[in-house]
Formats: sequence, C-alpha cells, structure tokens
Amino acid sequence: MKIAIAGAGAMGSRFGIMLHQAGEDVVLIDNWVEHVQQMSQSGIRGTLNGKEIEEKIPVYLPKDIPAGFSVDLIIVFTKALDLEQMLQDIQPIIDKKTDLLCLLNGIGHEDVMKKYVSPEHLLIGNTMWTANLKGPGQVELFGDGSVALQNLEAGQEETAQKVAGILSAAGLNAVYSKDILFSIYKKACVNGTMNCLCTLLDVSMADFGETSEAKRIVTEIVTEFAQVAAVEGVELNVSEMVDYIAQCYDRQTIGNHYPSMHQDLIKNHRRTEIDFINGAIVRKGEKYGIATPYCQLLVQLIHCKEEILQAN
Amino acid sequence: MKIAIAGAGAMGSRFGIMLHQAGEDVVLIDNWVEHVQQMSQSGIRGTLNGKEIEEKIPVYLPKDIPAGFSVDLIIVFTKALDLEQMLQDIQPIIDKKTDLLCLLNGIGHEDVMKKYVSPEHLLIGNTMWTANLKGPGQVELFGDGSVALQNLEAGQEETAQKVAGILSAAGLNAVYSKDILFSIYKKACVNGTMNCLCTLLDVSMADFGETSEAKRIVTEIVTEFAQVAAVEGVELNVSEMVDYIAQCYDRQTIGNHYPSMHQDLIKNHRRTEIDFINGAIVRKGEKYGIATPYCQLLVQLIHCKEEILQAN
Repeated sequence: MKIAIAGAGAMGSRFGIMLHQAGEDVVLIDNWVEHVQQMSQSGIRGTLNGKEIEEKIPVYLPKDIPAGFSVDLIIVFTKALDLEQMLQDIQPIIDKKTDLLCLLNGIGHEDVMKKYVSPEHLLIGNTMWTANLKGPGQVELFGDGSVALQNLEAGQEETAQKVAGILSAAGLNAVYSKDILFSIYKKACVNGTMNCLCTLLDVSMADFGETSEAKRIVTEIVTEFAQVAAVEGVELNVSEMVDYIAQCYDRQTIGNHYPSMHQDLIKNHRRTEIDFINGAIVRKGEKYGIATPYCQLLVQLIHCKEEILQAN
Repeated sequence: MKIAIAGAGAMGSRFGIMLHQAGEDVVLIDNWVEHVQQMSQSGIRGTLNGKEIEEKIPVYLPKDIPAGFSVDLIIVFTKALDLEQMLQDIQPIIDKKTDLLCLLNGIGHEDVMKKYVSPEHLLIGNTMWTANLKGPGQVELFGDGSVALQNLEAGQEETAQKVAGILSAAGLNAVYSKDILFSIYKKACVNGTMNCLCTLLDVSMADFGETSEAKRIVTEIVTEFAQVAAVEGVELNVSEMVDYIAQCYDRQTIGNHYPSMHQDLIKNHRRTEIDFINGAIVRKGEKYGIATPYCQLLVQLIHCKEEILQAN
C-alpha cells in the first residue's frame, strides 16, 4: 500500500518508520527544511526501544513532491494548527481513492479534512503512542502504544478495518473502534478543562483540582462539551466525565504535572491548540445553536495570553 | 450631627478628620487594635495636603462602644468583605432614626445594609477622594475629590440633600445625585472588566487592551452588567461603556497601570473584592433570571487564584 505520512515530526516519524520496516511503500512529507534534508541525506536516525536505527524513507517538502505522484492512504501528523495548510499543500497526491486518517488530538478536524477529501474516505481516531524528536532527522522512540480508529461515514467499516490491519501488521496495535467519537470527546473533555485552566491559573492539575471551585468550573465546561456532542450522537454523562477528569488531580499519579498547553504557552511561549479543543466546541455550538460561554471565554483568555507572551 | 465612621482606615480617617475639623460630633470605629490604640493615645497624625495634622477624635473598637450610644449618621468605610461583620458589630449604635451612608466600590452593598437598617434610611454613593494609611494612626492625605450620593428609596431626597450639605460644609465636595445607581454601575463596569482580566492575565490595562480579543471580552461582560442593571431601572449603553472602559488602555494616562485587584492578589496575596463586583452581578442575575456566565467564570477563576496563592 502506498502511504504518505503528512507531517513527519516525532509521531509521524514513528508511524513512518514502523510502517516502512513492515514493508509498506511509505513516503514522508514535512515542511521543516533542515529536517527533510537530514532525513533525505542520512535517513532517520536514533533509537527504537533502545536499539539504534537508521531508516531510509523517501521524504519530500510538499513543493518537491514529483508530478503525478498519488497515494492510497495519507496519515496526517501535523500540529492541529498546521493541518489545513498541509492538506492544501498536498492536494496533488490526493486522488479519488485516497483515504485520509487523522489521529490528532482535539475535535472537529473532520470539518477541515472534508474540504479536501470526500467524507467516505475519512478515517478518524486517536493514539496512545508517544515519540520524541531530538533534532533534525533524530528520533527517540520508546514504549508501547495503540491506535483506535473508525470510518467517519457509515458503510465504510471495511476501509477502516483494512487500515487498522495494516497498522497492526506494522506493530502499531490498531483496533477498529465502533465508537471513536466517544473516545475523541472523552479525551477532549480532559484537554478542554485541564489544559486551559492550568495554563490560565499557572498551576499543576492537582493544585487546580484542590480548589473549592474546581468541580463547579469543570462541570460547566463538560456540560457544554456534552451538549455539543449530543447533537453528533455522542452521549457524554457529565458527572461521570467530571469524575474521570478528577483522576488528573491525584498527586500519586499525574496530579503534580502541568498539562502540555502550560508547557507550550507559559514555558515555551508557543501558540496553543485551544482552537481545536474548546474552540471547536464554540464553533460547533454556533452551528448547532448551543451557547458555550465558558469555552468561549476560555478560548479568548488563552488567545489574549498568547498575544501577551508573543507566542509563535 | 452625631456621626460614626465605621471603618477608620485611610478613607474613613479622611472623612473623620475633615468632618471633625468642621465641628461635627464624630466618632471613629475600627477593628484594628493597634490602629485604634494609637489614635486613642496620640490622635490621628500625618499630613493633610502637606500640612502636619494631629486630630483627636474619639475612637472605639466595636466591642468598646459605650452602652446607650447611638448616632444620627453612620458612614461605612470598611473593605467590602468586612461590611457585614462591621454592621453586625455596631448594631447597638443604630437606632430608628440612624441614616447609613455607603460609598464603597462595588455593587449590591444595599442588600447587606438592608438587613441592618430600614431602606428609607439608606444612602448610597461613590467618592473620588483618595487617602493613604501609612501605619497605625498615621495618614497621608493629598489632593482633591468629591462625593455623589442619593437616597436608595424614593421620597428621601431631603435626607440625602442634608447629608450632602454636611459633607460639603466639611470640604468634601458632596453633591446630591439624581442617578447614583448609574454612576455606581458605570464604575463597576470598569472594575468588573479591568480588575479580574488584568489579574488573571497578569498584565497592565494597556497590555490587555491591545490584544485582539479585548473588545469582544469586555463587550460580553458589560452586556451582562447592562442586563442586570436594566432590571434595576439603570440603562447602560453597552457600546458607550466599552468605549469608556477603553480609555483605561491609554498609555499616556493610566494604561501602564495594574488595577488594584492585581496589586491585592498577585502582588500582596490578599483576598479580592470580586464578590462585590462581578459576583454581585452573578447573584443579581440569579435573582432576576439572567444568565451571567462570563461574570460567573471570572469570579470562579479569581477565587481559584486566591486559594492557590493562599490569599488572606
């Protein structure tokens, strides 16, 4: 199967390497010039579970993709902010039979993807794999993970099953999920509360969770997520979700950690993915006629903070 | 006229001194033991417009007020957070003819005051005077100011006019206002936006005002204030208020300043008056059936921050 990894950062490199090692016909596409040059000259180097690797995989900047080149499957692994630009850039490799799989965090990516690929070719999911990019062409891959994915449109289970099979054959532990939107919303509820709240308040998850307002705030936010999800046929039980999120406050496990958005914005002054978490709920809410004032104010405050810190 | 100043901090001391110098029968009441002892032994010392003063005014801790003592007028100058406790403490000096004047920042203080004094004896207003307490019994008073006040209940203009006259005779530039609630709400809109937003985002007013989200956020908050105010017969034009607030962003004037709530909470780790600004809008909104989600989330986030910083 001809597979393009669009966005060959840490996670894209992992998927590219594992699929290539399994004998698939993989190409990598990325916009970081230095990274692409390095991979092109010397392959991807680094470690996979402690073992040295040097994987030679064809790699292109979008503008250098050969004319007439197309693929069966594209797996996008850009940052959420860069998804649309990437899809625009790689339009030439998308033909009528190309499937597009998105495993990015956040919700509503299908609305962007639908502009470039017809819905029956869209697959969405999420992954528990991790990956680390140490520098141009340099990866560090460790540990175990999994993938869950599903076709967006009814009647395309066969495609989803087939893609899951290919990923699993490469060791990526992919399963077909009958209810992927539920998983995506569940993860988004955690990100849509912990990320923005700990970032705005500049605290760890436990420090937030131990305030007397935590439960009320989280409940209001999750209620907005649940009302939007319900329109899409996903039933989120608000009090169950609030309890699930409260596991993040446990100092014995992850409670002392700061969520990734805090690291991105407060520590590294990078733009956040808020528009693809709470911001997606605001946009969907407007579309469905549902008020989402908590999400809206949180998105606005995070954008203020991005501008104040000159994040880029 | 027998006048008690309940809360003899910086501003209460100013009013007490000026009324006492004008020959009024003034007593001061305060809960800070060291301050009360100092004033009791050596008078209030310090400067008034650069001139040394030493003003001997009777001063009491609430528990030491002589039995049978009552007054014609009480002017409350506690912190908003301490108003109710003070009114409870001084109940013995309130009789059926005692008028109560509140010039505190914030809105909704009348709901507390009504528990202790019947509405026809309530006067509300605001003041542009400033004052500085340098230590126990030590004040620094400089500059000019004014007072605007009004009776809360219709038909009590005469009382309000009389109190304004007494204050003006003492140089306090007090005027009777026909529309004090409008002024109070206008000031509350400034405080209800600049205070909590600059505190949460840890920025100056200009730094906030120059973000691209500033106008949208301020508009949402002011809309909630305006909807609540309308129920009380006060008409706030939202876009005019948003423009008025935008004057705070001017770096040539006050734009580089941090609002008082930022100083209280972020700098000095003191509890804020949020419950008497945005919090009052939330409570009134609940009473009137008006949704106030922006104010509610802002109150919750500020309370989180208070707990996180262990403010007291």
